[in-house]
Amino acid sequence: MYDAMKRRAEKQGDAPGTARYIGPERDYAPEAVVFDYGPEVFTETAWQGQGPGDLAEGLNRWLKVSGIHDAGLVTRIGECFCIHPLFVEDILNTSQRPKLQENGETVLIVVKVPGYDQAAQRISEEQLSLVWHPRWLVSFQETPGGVWEAVAARLHKEKSRLRRSGVDYLVIGLLDAVADRYFQVLGELGEDVQELEARLLARPTEAILFNLYHLKREVLSMRNHLWPLQEILTLMAREDQGGEVAPASMGLLRDVEDHVRHAVDALKTLHDMLADMLDLHMSLTGMRLNAIMKVLTLIATIFIPLTFIAGIYGMNFEFMPELKWRLGYPLALGLMALVAVGMLVYFRRRKWLG
Amino acid sequence: MYDAMKRRAEKQGDAPGTARYIGPERDYAPEAVVFDYGPEVFTETAWQGQGPGDLAEGLNRWLKVSGIHDAGLVTRIGECFCIHPLFVEDILNTSQRPKLQENGETVLIVVKVPGYDQAAQRISEEQLSLVWHPRWLVSFQETPGGVWEAVAARLHKEKSRLRRSGVDYLVIGLLDAVADRYFQVLGELGEDVQELEARLLARPTEAILFNLYHLKREVLSMRNHLWPLQEILTLMAREDQGGEVAPASMGLLRDVEDHVRHAVDALKTLHDMLADMLDLHMSLTGMRLNAIMKVLTLIATIFIPLTFIAGIYGMNFEFMPELKWRLGYPLALGLMALVAVGMLVYFRRRKWLG
Amino acid sequence: MYDAMKRRAEKQGDAPGTARYIGPERDYAPEAVVFDYGPEVFTETAWQGQGPGDLAEGLNRWLKVSGIHDAGLVTRIGECFCIHPLFVEDILNTSQRPKLQENGETVLIVVKVPGYDQAAQRISEEQLSLVWHPRWLVSFQETPGGVWEAVAARLHKEKSRLRRSGVDYLVIGLLDAVADRYFQVLGELGEDVQELEARLLARPTEAILFNLYHLKREVLSMRNHLWPLQEILTLMAREDQGGEVAPASMGLLRDVEDHVRHAVDALKTLHDMLADMLDLHMSLTGMRLNAIMKVLTLIATIFIPLTFIAGIYGMNFEFMPELKWRLGYPLALGLMALVAVGMLVYFRRRKWLG
Amino acid sequence: MYDAMKRRAEKQGDAPGTARYIGPERDYAPEAVVFDYGPEVFTETAWQGQGPGDLAEGLNRWLKVSGIHDAGLVTRIGECFCIHPLFVEDILNTSQRPKLQENGETVLIVVKVPGYDQAAQRISEEQLSLVWHPRWLVSFQETPGGVWEAVAARLHKEKSRLRRSGVDYLVIGLLDAVADRYFQVLGELGEDVQELEARLLARPTEAILFNLYHLKREVLSMRNHLWPLQEILTLMAREDQGGEVAPASMGLLRDVEDHVRHAVDALKTLHDMLADMLDLHMSLTGMRLNAIMKVLTLIATIFIPLTFIAGIYGMNFEFMPELKWRLGYPLALGLMALVAVGMLVYFRRRKWLG
Amino acid sequence: MYDAMKRRAEKQGDAPGTARYIGPERDYAPEAVVFDYGPEVFTETAWQGQGPGDLAEGLNRWLKVSGIHDAGLVTRIGECFCIHPLFVEDILNTSQRPKLQENGETVLIVVKVPGYDQAAQRISEEQLSLVWHPRWLVSFQETPGGVWEAVAARLHKEKSRLRRSGVDYLVIGLLDAVADRYFQVLGELGEDVQELEARLLARPTEAILFNLYHLKREVLSMRNHLWPLQEILTLMAREDQGGEVAPASMGLLRDVEDHVRHAVDALKTLHDMLADMLDLHMSLTGMRLNAIMKVLTLIATIFIPLTFIAGIYGMNFEFMPELKWRLGYPLALGLMALVAVGMLVYFRRRKWLG
Repeated sequence: MYDAMKRRAEKQGDAPGTARYIGPERDYAPEAVVFDYGPEVFTETAWQGQGPGDLAEGLNRWLKVSGIHDAGLVTRIGECFCIHPLFVEDILNTSQRPKLQENGETVLIVVKVPGYDQAAQRISEEQLSLVWHPRWLVSFQETPGGVWEAVAARLHKEKSRLRRSGVDYLVIGLLDAVADRYFQVLGELGEDVQELEARLLARPTEAILFNLYHLKREVLSMRNHLWPLQEILTLMAREDQGGEVAPASMGLLRDVEDHVRHAVDALKTLHDMLADMLDLHMSLTGMRLNAIMKVLTLIATIFIPLTFIAGIYGMNFEFMPELKWRLGYPLALGLMALVAVGMLVYFRRRKWLG
Repeated sequence: MYDAMKRRAEKQGDAPGTARYIGPERDYAPEAVVFDYGPEVFTETAWQGQGPGDLAEGLNRWLKVSGIHDAGLVTRIGECFCIHPLFVEDILNTSQRPKLQENGETVLIVVKVPGYDQAAQRISEEQLSLVWHPRWLVSFQETPGGVWEAVAARLHKEKSRLRRSGVDYLVIGLLDAVADRYFQVLGELGEDVQELEARLLARPTEAILFNLYHLKREVLSMRNHLWPLQEILTLMAREDQGGEVAPASMGLLRDVEDHVRHAVDALKTLHDMLADMLDLHMSLTGMRLNAIMKVLTLIATIFIPLTFIAGIYGMNFEFMPELKWRLGYPLALGLMALVAVGMLVYFRRRKWLG
Repeated sequence: MYDAMKRRAEKQGDAPGTARYIGPERDYAPEAVVFDYGPEVFTETAWQGQGPGDLAEGLNRWLKVSGIHDAGLVTRIGECFCIHPLFVEDILNTSQRPKLQENGETVLIVVKVPGYDQAAQRISEEQLSLVWHPRWLVSFQETPGGVWEAVAARLHKEKSRLRRSGVDYLVIGLLDAVADRYFQVLGELGEDVQELEARLLARPTEAILFNLYHLKREVLSMRNHLWPLQEILTLMAREDQGGEVAPASMGLLRDVEDHVRHAVDALKTLHDMLADMLDLHMSLTGMRLNAIMKVLTLIATIFIPLTFIAGIYGMNFEFMPELKWRLGYPLALGLMALVAVGMLVYFRRRKWLG
Repeated sequence: MYDAMKRRAEKQGDAPGTARYIGPERDYAPEAVVFDYGPEVFTETAWQGQGPGDLAEGLNRWLKVSGIHDAGLVTRIGECFCIHPLFVEDILNTSQRPKLQENGETVLIVVKVPGYDQAAQRISEEQLSLVWHPRWLVSFQETPGGVWEAVAARLHKEKSRLRRSGVDYLVIGLLDAVADRYFQVLGELGEDVQELEARLLARPTEAILFNLYHLKREVLSMRNHLWPLQEILTLMAREDQGGEVAPASMGLLRDVEDHVRHAVDALKTLHDMLADMLDLHMSLTGMRLNAIMKVLTLIATIFIPLTFIAGIYGMNFEFMPELKWRLGYPLALGLMALVAVGMLVYFRRRKWLG
Repeated sequence: MYDAMKRRAEKQGDAPGTARYIGPERDYAPEAVVFDYGPEVFTETAWQGQGPGDLAEGLNRWLKVSGIHDAGLVTRIGECFCIHPLFVEDILNTSQRPKLQENGETVLIVVKVPGYDQAAQRISEEQLSLVWHPRWLVSFQETPGGVWEAVAARLHKEKSRLRRSGVDYLVIGLLDAVADRYFQVLGELGEDVQELEARLLARPTEAILFNLYHLKREVLSMRNHLWPLQEILTLMAREDQGGEVAPASMGLLRDVEDHVRHAVDALKTLHDMLADMLDLHMSLTGMRLNAIMKVLTLIATIFIPLTFIAGIYGMNFEFMPELKWRLGYPLALGLMALVAVGMLVYFRRRKWLG
């Protein structure tokens, strides 16, 4: 996160609207595919510089761009579709906060989609941008494949509702796919947390402590991306703001909103669970310390006095009458046994042997 | 919770509105009963595919479905009653967040009803859904029986107000039954917490710690279902939203709202109590450690110097004049007594013997 | 609290509006007194079934009921005054959340009044209900006497403003008396907290810990009753809601509102103080542990090496030249003194003797 | 605070509007001075019963009362200026929550002004009340002198803007003086906190712990007076509420609002700092314990095994061949050295000697 | 911070609007440069007392003042540009809370720009003020150079959008530069936090604890300046408030708003991370204590009983038959070995050797 901030800060002297890619380096070629679709039509072609001008009546166009590390390509697309330079700048900057921004008829939506590497317990994030116009949509993603493949596949099917609806329905569908991915990641995270909990209840170790701390941080960073997504959907549902959402698509939008609200709840619960587990870890550590100290105290308080008695009769004074007694030795051993039993009785009374 | 999330994530490729059951497996046959009722009429029949069309003037219809694991049945009911496919999808998905959603004249309400297994101290949850139309109501529950039996029983009685009122009154009555169940579970939970508190004040153990932690988690998960219920009732009370609530039913609705607000207060109090008890546990553990360490310190600091003195006169030097003294032994014992008494006096002064 | 919840849950099958007493058992007879009053008139009679019908022009009526455990009596009063059955149900249920509810011209106000048993440090609560109509008022309290006696006494005096004002003024006066009782209880609680603080600063004990924990819980439960009272007053001050409050009474209402807000502040401060004191207790326990361990460490680290030296010269090897030396013994003692002094210097350097 | 609450609770039987002084006893005579002022006029006279009636056209009147423990005087002033009895009651009650209340053309403002006794680190508070009418102002303070002296002095100067402005400007000026005093106290408090921090970082002691705890409480109680002041200023800035603030005075009002918001920020920061310092104290105590225990463990684990070896060769068995060996003694010493070095190496490996 | 508060409190007697510099002493001469610019014109001259009067049609003027410790200069500029005296007072007071204030056509914006000294890990702050009029802008900064140099440089370029836009665009550009600086500082802070985290996970020391505590405080103080900046931008975006922002500039304003919201998120995350790290530090300290105590307990509980056995056979009783046995010595050693092994087995069973 902080690398991105510094990289971004390097832009400090640039005029607003300067197109510059800010993000990790990539080693594959970006890809841009155009889907033209309508109730009865569906074509898929590589993008060759066409803008929205040549679009047939009754059709919608979705330009799906995978890979934004080529600032030139994104700028060119921006020009062909008359996208505002500030929008292009935001699309290229992968350290963007999720947001919805309007400019005339076009709307920019930036969201983050999470990925979870269960082996490293690390959440990755990819920035997705949508430029949404009543007739067309341009989507940008950092890597090929990803959550929108399934939506594109559904577009192939003639009887799909996507084909019969406007661009707004497609936008909501894409956001729905993002919400589903959040659920998937939350589910995987939740499993890891539950497994960790089982291990913690068995025995608190330093490794578990680090693990808990690490997961809590991942949850914290995920929150930063999920909360703004909720705001975006709320903005879209408001009538006076966002792109026009047709009444027919409103049902799905509300549904996606509910999904995201559910995800936010789950994330909050996860966070609270991790915080509780960290507290539990601390309490358990304290209890184990108590248990250890009890043993030490028990052993020490029983044997130290005994050793002292042995020490007394180990002294070399010439005139120690007990040493000459026939029963001196057994009496000394008896005294020791007495002291030991007395101590044990005392401890049992104070309930320290349980 | 997280299993459900993963199962839900498997739906990721489905188009919105796909009817698929998401929930635990069940091994009984779903049941669907139709109640047609009016001030003077009441009939109860098994559902045989009828929709709302054949309903006599002045009557209301309640279709009560127990068991939603048969997606086909639910879909068929949805078709007969013209329920929106997105509603059907939500009803079948038992990992739904409680919510109220409108579509034209019909309103979908999804709530969770808790159950408490006092032996295992585990809260279970069942999802209940209501599709509410001014003339009819379809209710879905995961298992047979449950909180709505009592409402159905009241419907049998001719002089019941339910018979004389519209569907809105029935809906509120059903939600009232849900609120009452929350109270019952909270009461049982509260008893367990109070019993645990008594045990904690007597003596903090690891078992109590786990118990507290576990109950706090159960409370946390219950919160996720109770809060949205409050939102739903607030939405219903607003005039411009939710199904039409007749002015005559408004009183009961406000009452149920108050019940739920009360339950939310009680849950919050329970949560705070558990958090305070966890803190108390930690403090008590610390205090017990102090008590243990005091004993160890007392014993060790008294006997270690004494043992040292004994050790000195246990040395084998040839020229140790004290060893030859007639009073050497009693003098050494006296010195030891002096040191021990001195230590005790010091400790008493510092108030460590209290 | 949780007993009440369970008792309430037993009502689960009842139809809404069923009059059933929910509360602790009582062993005295309820009492109902009627005050008819106006600027020049004041009569006090036992209630004999009269409703508001026979009330002379220009007079107001206050029916003061002490004891609600006779559900029959309350129901009869409800019928005479045409009180909504849901209101009667709420009045009889002593585990009600404080609230204000309207029904046509009548308004139901339910509040809790606290009592503080300073010996047991336990806050008790009594539920008070008001059914308020522009011309009459019916008040219900669980026990005889209580905070409203003083208001009734003021009504006797001819020049009292209560006599010259409407029922709204009386209602506000009664709520003012409730607010004053909250102040009294807060004052007593506050004194106990301050005394506890003095004891804590002197020496943290387990008894103080339990005491703090217990008081925090009492404060927590009081909060649940005080906050809704604030909401009720805010509702009354709003013009479009609650019973009609005459402009002339508005000043007093604002005053009572301020009182309650002040009480809420004081309760919050009390809560924060108790939380801080619990933290302080924990810190102090930790510091005491440090002090104890320092003494143990000091004694042990000084005497353990010395004992070891004594042990060496207590060995029985035949060939130990030092044992034969004339100065062996004084040299050994000198070595021990050196080690002890060295340790002490080291500790002083590290500032462990302060 | 709690004394005041109890004293206030003694009023419990009084009718609202009863004038009774609630506050600490005072032993000086109250003083009341009248300032009549206008752009070219300024007179200062002792109050002799005049109300607002004899005020010349174009002039404003400020009656400045120092000392409110004479309830009779305050009541008389109230009568002369037709101040509402509830206002008079509030002015006399020094345990009032800061507030703004309207009654026709007059507005009552009650605020608290803090004082800081840096030696005792104790915040005192004085209640100030303003009764504000478009043409006149009556101010009440508990003690003579105080923050308003400087404003009165400015009124003497002919070219002062106060002289050329209405009463609203004077009111804002007086509140500005109060805000400045908050800043002063916060500055002094902040210095004490910073000094305490330096001492804490050097070495955590019980005295510092008590000091931190005490300061946190003072900050807590100051918060209760500062937050409502912010509310009062916000109310004044709203157009439809509070006394009429002329547009020309609005700039100053916004300025004072900003001052108070700044003070609230500073108080919050102070609170957070103190909380963090309390946590730091606890962490440091824990670390010191670790350091102490390390030394104890080091000494004990090295010498206890050595002492054991010495103990073995101190046994008096007749047949112990090693005792007869020529090299028995040096070998035993060598064994001890070996064990000691082994232990040290082990500790160094585990990094316990750092 | 608290020095500034005290210095500010010294102003206590001043009339509002008194121009007095409050801030650290400076030893350089203030500088004032005038930029007159339009689409085709750009001139840069030293300020020689000109106000906005001589400004050519179609041009905008930016007066950039570096150094405000000369109250006379600032007052003179204020007079030339007819800036409200309260604004001048605020500009001179460097302990101002960030704010936006209107007065007729002019708007005052005060913000703080952070600096981060990575060696000392200390955040510094500089106050920047803008007086913004539709035709001109006066900017004040405490030191020369700084974040606005880059904006001034962009103004030189003929094709820059700044040249073709109004003053509002310039204002937003300047605030954008401030936001970028926040990002830079956050990035540097974040790097330090991550480095600290790595060190903490390796080994918790007192130095790290102090470091964490210190950074948390810096984050706390930065929050006080960043949050009000967000408020300012929100105020500017509202149509009815703030200076007129042309629709064409609205896009950039929204962008800057998003930047700042992002920075607020990042700051919050940083704060939470630091809090978590402080908790982790405490947990780790507790775990290390456990580890240390385990070793001590292990060694002590094994050797103390052994030493006791050796002590017994070191006693000098005349009649101790074991001492005469041929196998006495090996039997004693065997007993010791048995005890030691028994203890180890016990510990392994309780999993204390892991």
